[in-house]
Amino acid sequence: MEQSNYTLLCDFYELTMGNAYFENGMGDRRVYFDLFFRNVPDGGGFAIAAGLEQVVQYIKNLHFSESDIAFLRKKKIFSEAFLSSLRDFRFTGDLYAVPEGTPVFPHEPILTVCAPAIEAQLIETFLLLSINHQSLIATKANRIVRAAKGRPVSEFGSRRAQGADGAVLGARAAYIAGCAGTACTLTDRVYGVPAGGTMAHSWVQMFDSELDAFRTYCKIYPHNATLLVDTYHVLKSGVPNAIRAFQEILLPQGIEECAIRIDSGDITYLSKKARKMLDEAGLTKCKIVASNSLDEHIIETLLEQGAQIDSFGVGERLITSKSEPVFGGVYKLCAVEDEQGRIIPKIKISENTTKITTPHFKKVYRLYEKESGKAIADQLCVYDETLDETKPLELFDPEATWKRKLVTDFTARELLVPVFRNGECVYDLPDIETIRNYCAEQIDLLWDEVKRFENPHTYYVDLSQKLWDIKDRLLKERA
Amino acid sequence: MEQSNYTLLCDFYELTMGNAYFENGMGDRRVYFDLFFRNVPDGGGFAIAAGLEQVVQYIKNLHFSESDIAFLRKKKIFSEAFLSSLRDFRFTGDLYAVPEGTPVFPHEPILTVCAPAIEAQLIETFLLLSINHQSLIATKANRIVRAAKGRPVSEFGSRRAQGADGAVLGARAAYIAGCAGTACTLTDRVYGVPAGGTMAHSWVQMFDSELDAFRTYCKIYPHNATLLVDTYHVLKSGVPNAIRAFQEILLPQGIEECAIRIDSGDITYLSKKARKMLDEAGLTKCKIVASNSLDEHIIETLLEQGAQIDSFGVGERLITSKSEPVFGGVYKLCAVEDEQGRIIPKIKISENTTKITTPHFKKVYRLYEKESGKAIADQLCVYDETLDETKPLELFDPEATWKRKLVTDFTARELLVPVFRNGECVYDLPDIETIRNYCAEQIDLLWDEVKRFENPHTYYVDLSQKLWDIKDRLLKERA
Repeated sequence: MEQSNYTLLCDFYELTMGNAYFENGMGDRRVYFDLFFRNVPDGGGFAIAAGLEQVVQYIKNLHFSESDIAFLRKKKIFSEAFLSSLRDFRFTGDLYAVPEGTPVFPHEPILTVCAPAIEAQLIETFLLLSINHQSLIATKANRIVRAAKGRPVSEFGSRRAQGADGAVLGARAAYIAGCAGTACTLTDRVYGVPAGGTMAHSWVQMFDSELDAFRTYCKIYPHNATLLVDTYHVLKSGVPNAIRAFQEILLPQGIEECAIRIDSGDITYLSKKARKMLDEAGLTKCKIVASNSLDEHIIETLLEQGAQIDSFGVGERLITSKSEPVFGGVYKLCAVEDEQGRIIPKIKISENTTKITTPHFKKVYRLYEKESGKAIADQLCVYDETLDETKPLELFDPEATWKRKLVTDFTARELLVPVFRNGECVYDLPDIETIRNYCAEQIDLLWDEVKRFENPHTYYVDLSQKLWDIKDRLLKERA
Repeated sequence: MEQSNYTLLCDFYELTMGNAYFENGMGDRRVYFDLFFRNVPDGGGFAIAAGLEQVVQYIKNLHFSESDIAFLRKKKIFSEAFLSSLRDFRFTGDLYAVPEGTPVFPHEPILTVCAPAIEAQLIETFLLLSINHQSLIATKANRIVRAAKGRPVSEFGSRRAQGADGAVLGARAAYIAGCAGTACTLTDRVYGVPAGGTMAHSWVQMFDSELDAFRTYCKIYPHNATLLVDTYHVLKSGVPNAIRAFQEILLPQGIEECAIRIDSGDITYLSKKARKMLDEAGLTKCKIVASNSLDEHIIETLLEQGAQIDSFGVGERLITSKSEPVFGGVYKLCAVEDEQGRIIPKIKISENTTKITTPHFKKVYRLYEKESGKAIADQLCVYDETLDETKPLELFDPEATWKRKLVTDFTARELLVPVFRNGECVYDLPDIETIRNYCAEQIDLLWDEVKRFENPHTYYVDLSQKLWDIKDRLLKERA
């Protein structure tokens, strides 16, 4: 797929601010922005970061064409000097991010930009859009995959996605988070996510009889025969006709692998009855696929009720994260450099206290218990601090500083890795299988308590004493 | 923006079915598909159709590249003859659709395709994706615009959109439905939707004082000074500093047009206090813009409480249609042609009765009362019926056939217009201002009862007697 030029996919205020920084001689001033989020969707215990690969492509491709500049000139609010400067515009700064597939928590930077003000500002919208979208879908897809308890989940939602990227990149994010594949052919073509599918109701309707439709399909695809059995009546016609087609066409060829799909009606009841009918016909290897408005809660309930489902196709509730379709990532200024190159921390106060930011250029450490390997807390530090794993570390709740805990026997890993340095990409983008495996491994390192769907344990994201003191001082200055 | 090739943006089963139709000699069989939806999002009384322009571009651009074909060959399930045929694949059929901006109702076709089976099948996914996405956002945006009662609403949601198309085409759909503009620069560049914006919190944070930030902005943009007043404290610092900057920089130039934006805190309370402060300072022409997680319900309540808001910026709840992020359009086979070219109606039964389809190739008429000009009902007819406006028409509820009503003094308009005929585009795509004006006019022709946000009157979508009889016969045959 051609790489689109998304340079103008920015809020217009990025350009008005950019021009004003330029006019005011502040365009080259180095600034630091953090991208973070405040709440995990669906009340979950963690989110999964995704969308970095598209950020990297976007930044590499940043440029204003002559016609872009002509378009902006017509707005009659940008100076000619600023418009001229856009001809050579590119990203010259640094960017740090957590690798795609990393479990992440509220209020910690998952991406940090350090760049001249104009550049850092201009990229805000696309960075948020990409990370918000794919993190949203990865987080939702992983909930659904966990609910299926090892049964494969396929992403089926292209037709209900919010636009083409919603479909294609949504399916990419879902795969990173553990889906087994997608129905979206283009996601296979572009990102190597395995696409599959067999028939819609229209196939069945095209024939004079359902049995003819099934026979024909089995003849053409004996090794890929998943028959959709709910065009007319699942138990009265769909399953009996599927059994007959399998017996007539597949069994004589020695093929026992086949499947039926149920896309409407009560899935628990129908799947139990269908399983019995298939088994009685000797088709014990025939699998049952369920689709139709599924999500993590319905899948959990179906399995609790003993539904006989071998795999799930999940559409609209995954591809739009229907129950909570917004990942509220924000991009906030946390520091600026003064003329001597000193990094001056900045804070944003708000009448909504949860909107107060954590100032300064920061590092994020994840601490793992040595014995179990499990993640126990994340700690945000000032950029020039180094966490010493060999010494006991006192963690404290930044909202309730008397709650303190001494941690020993841990390892610490820095989460933010360099992606761009001085405008050059220094990060080898991992392939999608690597990202998917890393994601699964990292989720295994979370305690089950953090993975509960409802009311999970709140994972600790703490500040170092030094960082807490700086935040406290800035809060008091601004209060 | 380059036109992406979305030919492979299809569910994989479109290709398995396509190959199987081909192998079974059914690929050229003419089939009829309807695109329709079953429920209006948010319990509303009507939806707004949008997304047709992107369907037209997609169909014009349909083609398989050699590398697409090579990709499919590797799947090892498609015949070489089928793969070869894809080299010349293009759309040769007919397509009818309601113009963008038309208010539409459940269970009526908003798009109908008549084409060889392979073609009609392949385009399913993209057609649904485009119409579902943009109709969703147009429908939601119009609710928000109506709640604002004439105050301009700007679309602000790019950063929270589900992908780049979600942002760009979402902003297009929002404009069609009555938004005054967007923050998304690319939507202006590509679709001519006016983009605007001034500053983020980072602008204010970049300066040593909020007052300096405001002064600098007013100097650079005296005619476009909307100052964001909630970086620190709206009433203690934001508004007083804005007043001072306006008085120092704008008033001496004779400029009275300016604005402040409030993005957090209690908007009713803050806007009333801010209005009073601005008025007392003689800035009676200074407008107040509100943003921060708004939707139709919050806007209604703010206005009921007397909030002093002149315009609204609406982000995530519009661009994702957060309260209901899925428009459930479906694409169902309604007829096939036999070898003699006769059109044979087809039905899909379901254990969920609302999923039963209305068979046959159909026309949709909208009836308007002559006296008021208001829309009174839609009627679906068989393609060869013609509605005679000069005679009284008996309408009846297709679910409760004893409920009958005689309609006289009406005009009738066919809603579906030809878009493609024999693969040629025969439709002049209207420009976006034309679509937007048409949308507003058509919504004016709906009764207020249909426009209620909660529990609206259910607009009548009836079947002609002939169509009802055919559906009834097919239902009984399949029962």
